[in-house]
Amino acid sequence: MTQFWLWIGVIGMASGSIFFGVGAHNAKKESWRAIFILNFFITAIASALYLAMALGQGVNVIQDRTTYWVRYVTWFLSTPLLLLDLAYLGRTSVPLVGSLLGANAYMIATGFVATISPKPINYIWYLVSCGAYLAIIYLLVKPYRLEAERKLPGMAGAFRRLVTVHLVLWTGYPLVWILGNTGFNLISGGVETMLYTSLDLASKVGFGLLSLNTLHTLEQVREPQLVRR
Amino acid sequence: MTQFWLWIGVIGMASGSIFFGVGAHNAKKESWRAIFILNFFITAIASALYLAMALGQGVNVIQDRTTYWVRYVTWFLSTPLLLLDLAYLGRTSVPLVGSLLGANAYMIATGFVATISPKPINYIWYLVSCGAYLAIIYLLVKPYRLEAERKLPGMAGAFRRLVTVHLVLWTGYPLVWILGNTGFNLISGGVETMLYTSLDLASKVGFGLLSLNTLHTLEQVREPQLVRR
Amino acid sequence: MTQFWLWIGVIGMASGSIFFGVGAHNAKKESWRAIFILNFFITAIASALYLAMALGQGVNVIQDRTTYWVRYVTWFLSTPLLLLDLAYLGRTSVPLVGSLLGANAYMIATGFVATISPKPINYIWYLVSCGAYLAIIYLLVKPYRLEAERKLPGMAGAFRRLVTVHLVLWTGYPLVWILGNTGFNLISGGVETMLYTSLDLASKVGFGLLSLNTLHTLEQVREPQLVRR
Repeated sequence: MTQFWLWIGVIGMASGSIFFGVGAHNAKKESWRAIFILNFFITAIASALYLAMALGQGVNVIQDRTTYWVRYVTWFLSTPLLLLDLAYLGRTSVPLVGSLLGANAYMIATGFVATISPKPINYIWYLVSCGAYLAIIYLLVKPYRLEAERKLPGMAGAFRRLVTVHLVLWTGYPLVWILGNTGFNLISGGVETMLYTSLDLASKVGFGLLSLNTLHTLEQVREPQLVRR
Repeated sequence: MTQFWLWIGVIGMASGSIFFGVGAHNAKKESWRAIFILNFFITAIASALYLAMALGQGVNVIQDRTTYWVRYVTWFLSTPLLLLDLAYLGRTSVPLVGSLLGANAYMIATGFVATISPKPINYIWYLVSCGAYLAIIYLLVKPYRLEAERKLPGMAGAFRRLVTVHLVLWTGYPLVWILGNTGFNLISGGVETMLYTSLDLASKVGFGLLSLNTLHTLEQVREPQLVRR
Repeated sequence: MTQFWLWIGVIGMASGSIFFGVGAHNAKKESWRAIFILNFFITAIASALYLAMALGQGVNVIQDRTTYWVRYVTWFLSTPLLLLDLAYLGRTSVPLVGSLLGANAYMIATGFVATISPKPINYIWYLVSCGAYLAIIYLLVKPYRLEAERKLPGMAGAFRRLVTVHLVLWTGYPLVWILGNTGFNLISGGVETMLYTSLDLASKVGFGLLSLNTLHTLEQVREPQLVRR
């Protein structure tokens, strides 16, 4: 079952990267090209991750647990690009983008340490990593949305939806972590892989499509004088 | 004794990150928020470092020496932020910031290689790393200060103090390295940990406070027409 | 023979970094300083690589093959700087620079995975890495040159030469890889080292000189009103 879901991941992510890559190639406007390029690299990195795992690489027995540690290596590279999607759409200022990327790197790095630590130390790092995630939630729900709504008046609904979908999907990861062998061991390795693959496909391919849809909404509604950056 | 000083590091860095984090949250002006955010991440990264070491992680016997290699991982991430503090205050140009960050990454990376290399090869890498540090000293003492004084006339004193404190603190690290088991083995592991913890607290929490103080001085003295960037 | 070529690499790269470093120090114009600084760091990183290999470090037997894995660590850091040389000369836009750096990181990372993977899985990763290289070729031959020629009219010849030399040199690496013990094992370790050292010297020291020469051409021919960026 693990193998099945890993190959689903390969096929899904590769399809996504082809779609976004072709879109980037054909995009006329710079705004569309930017979003397509970001999502192309997000799904291309994830394709390599799933290919490696499907080939039996990037996995070791760590602390008596079968651990796909390579996930964290690629998440460290792909999650900042997802946040840049949000930042590009919301015209986020540099200090806020820096804070989001910093909190995200902190979350992934300490999540990785949690994953390779023996119990019960792993739970300490899990809480630290969740703390960084709470910081991301706060930054997106409050200052990110305020800034986006100030710069793009009348688009509050689009950004509320974007942030909500993003946070619902990202919240799935710490839940799977605590249910899997890294935490309380309530689900099997196969189910864990199924859940991570589903979350990855939704939060990378699906969220990429939502980003494009949001850009479409922004450019439809926006007054001409707001088109210039 | 080692454990005691590692927990001092955890408490000191966590206190610092709470202080800078609250400051970033409450800051009204973008300049203050930028400096608070940088120092929040510097001390948050160091908090994770000390927590890991206090929990017995990030340490291995390498070349018959008990080596806290995790220090170098976190220094690689936090030292560029310290240099960005200086760059932000002095309005440093991109080529100079790039040179400082490049020399710093080179210093930390070759210092890490020195730390995990067998004697006497480690001394070769130590000298290479010190060479990169000499480049940093030169860049800060000459072009950095010239640029800052040109862009912020009348503030020469503030920048002289800032650079002097920075260099005195950073010079402590290669001294501890050569005195510790990585070098001539003249001090015990406990003393080494005490010295590194003290240097870290002074150069991260202390230097962060000095950065805020310098920003205060700059904004007090500066003419109104210079406030705009 | 391996040792001989590694020390040739040390001497060549160190000479290059001294040359470019002195150039950066003495440069009057910011454009010249930028190119000198980039090539200084490129050759300084390569100097550390060759010093490590000459001292017997950064090499392990992986999958029954003697593997200088440290090459990939340093290529990951130096190749983006080479692309920044091109981007700076051609005034490349941010989305294109991002795409080039992304494809390059993908190429080096998957090339590294290929190098440490068992046969025949390594060939899968080799093809993935070559795919990323094909993307770089396309980006440089088409959009990069179009943009450079649009922004710097009349300089098509200089950019054609620059891109051609760049691609001829970079194409040597996958050829050596597939001929060496990582691939079909048709050349000895000594010959492999000789070829990699020659390619590195040509594509770093040599290409740095070509960059300077191209900058000279650009500034000679360019109309005064084009000098301002």
